[in-house]
Amino acid sequence: MSAVADRLAALGLSVPPVATPVASYVPALAHGGFVFTSGQLPFVDGVLVATGKVGGEVGAEEAYELARTAALNAVAAVGSVVDLDDVVQVVKVGVFVASASGFTGQPGVANGASDLLAAAFGEAGQHARSAVGVAELPLGSPVEVELQVAVRA
Amino acid sequence: MSAVADRLAALGLSVPPVATPVASYVPALAHGGFVFTSGQLPFVDGVLVATGKVGGEVGAEEAYELARTAALNAVAAVGSVVDLDDVVQVVKVGVFVASASGFTGQPGVANGASDLLAAAFGEAGQHARSAVGVAELPLGSPVEVELQVAVRA
Amino acid sequence: MSAVADRLAALGLSVPPVATPVASYVPALAHGGFVFTSGQLPFVDGVLVATGKVGGEVGAEEAYELARTAALNAVAAVGSVVDLDDVVQVVKVGVFVASASGFTGQPGVANGASDLLAAAFGEAGQHARSAVGVAELPLGSPVEVELQVAVRA
Repeated sequence: MSAVADRLAALGLSVPPVATPVASYVPALAHGGFVFTSGQLPFVDGVLVATGKVGGEVGAEEAYELARTAALNAVAAVGSVVDLDDVVQVVKVGVFVASASGFTGQPGVANGASDLLAAAFGEAGQHARSAVGVAELPLGSPVEVELQVAVRA
Repeated sequence: MSAVADRLAALGLSVPPVATPVASYVPALAHGGFVFTSGQLPFVDGVLVATGKVGGEVGAEEAYELARTAALNAVAAVGSVVDLDDVVQVVKVGVFVASASGFTGQPGVANGASDLLAAAFGEAGQHARSAVGVAELPLGSPVEVELQVAVRA
Repeated sequence: MSAVADRLAALGLSVPPVATPVASYVPALAHGGFVFTSGQLPFVDGVLVATGKVGGEVGAEEAYELARTAALNAVAAVGSVVDLDDVVQVVKVGVFVASASGFTGQPGVANGASDLLAAAFGEAGQHARSAVGVAELPLGSPVEVELQVAVRA
């Protein structure tokens, strides 16, 4: 069992299957020592588990959990193209939060992604991050998470 | 004639001239085996071909075409700093869609960019992608497309 | 004294201290010849110097200055992980502008970041850039700036 899978299992989590995009793009792409993921939504078993704006229909604590779920899907996307134990560093995380007018707590939401990555990768999970509040996300998702990670050559 | 130019010609397209930004930035920059483009708008012959919000004044099908045009301009930006036939992989595509309230069809719009890249680069055109709905874009553009591509060393 | 510090001093600027994020992420991360910064806000001496939407409570000229301040903080973040004189190229700049409805002057705002980078790094400060107008930013900030720079191996 891999070290990353072990760490996730300790949280009661496992790496989910990866949804195949119905288009000319891929869940993740490896090149030049990096893996880039597509923006990932909080799908669980093929179902988007919430819709709506954070600060509106969706509370900040629920959004933290959704960011964690989206980040787990992003980890799965990385694992679809490389061995997760070959990740040497998560370098950059982008968290897009569909935000109701006046909601400015994007960092607290994005911590759901950051905390999951720390749990999954340990020291290698430290990363730079941008968190922004956007107008709308695909399918009405409250959050979207993208990763760039460095992998063993 | 280059392979990329050939593929575009088969669609009745050619690589357009690149607009020079009036600022301290450049349309594209090559470094370390990658080319990064600036965010590109759907300009044709120096004219922004539409303005407004997608899901509002601009329909989803029109927006697909606009994303295709912006992606073609991004390809041109890449071609302004490297030979397009030296592109070995499009690695990451960012598509920003100026979205009217309640419009959640960003992936369908972004497919305009993804499909153009697949047509232009074939297998090398496969990429990871993030599509988000933003509040406003420069000059009122409905879409903005940015690329990161890997090039032959 | 470093060349970058010299150039900033000529503008009456110095590299500020870096705020430590209270989370599982870091202000900047160096890997594989690149440094990635987290999204930076216009903090001065630990205080966010303005809040509100650009085109609304915040004017475009003020926002230019705020983007300059956020970019200076991003330079400081780079300097927290590498020697700033080892920066060989700023490759990509992302500027997020919290935009009031109908405000489409994001490029003019983003020039505040671009001009600061040109002043700080000279030729090495040229970069590709995306500027987008978002719905909300952390803490109500009007702007957020992120950098990817290449560094001497």
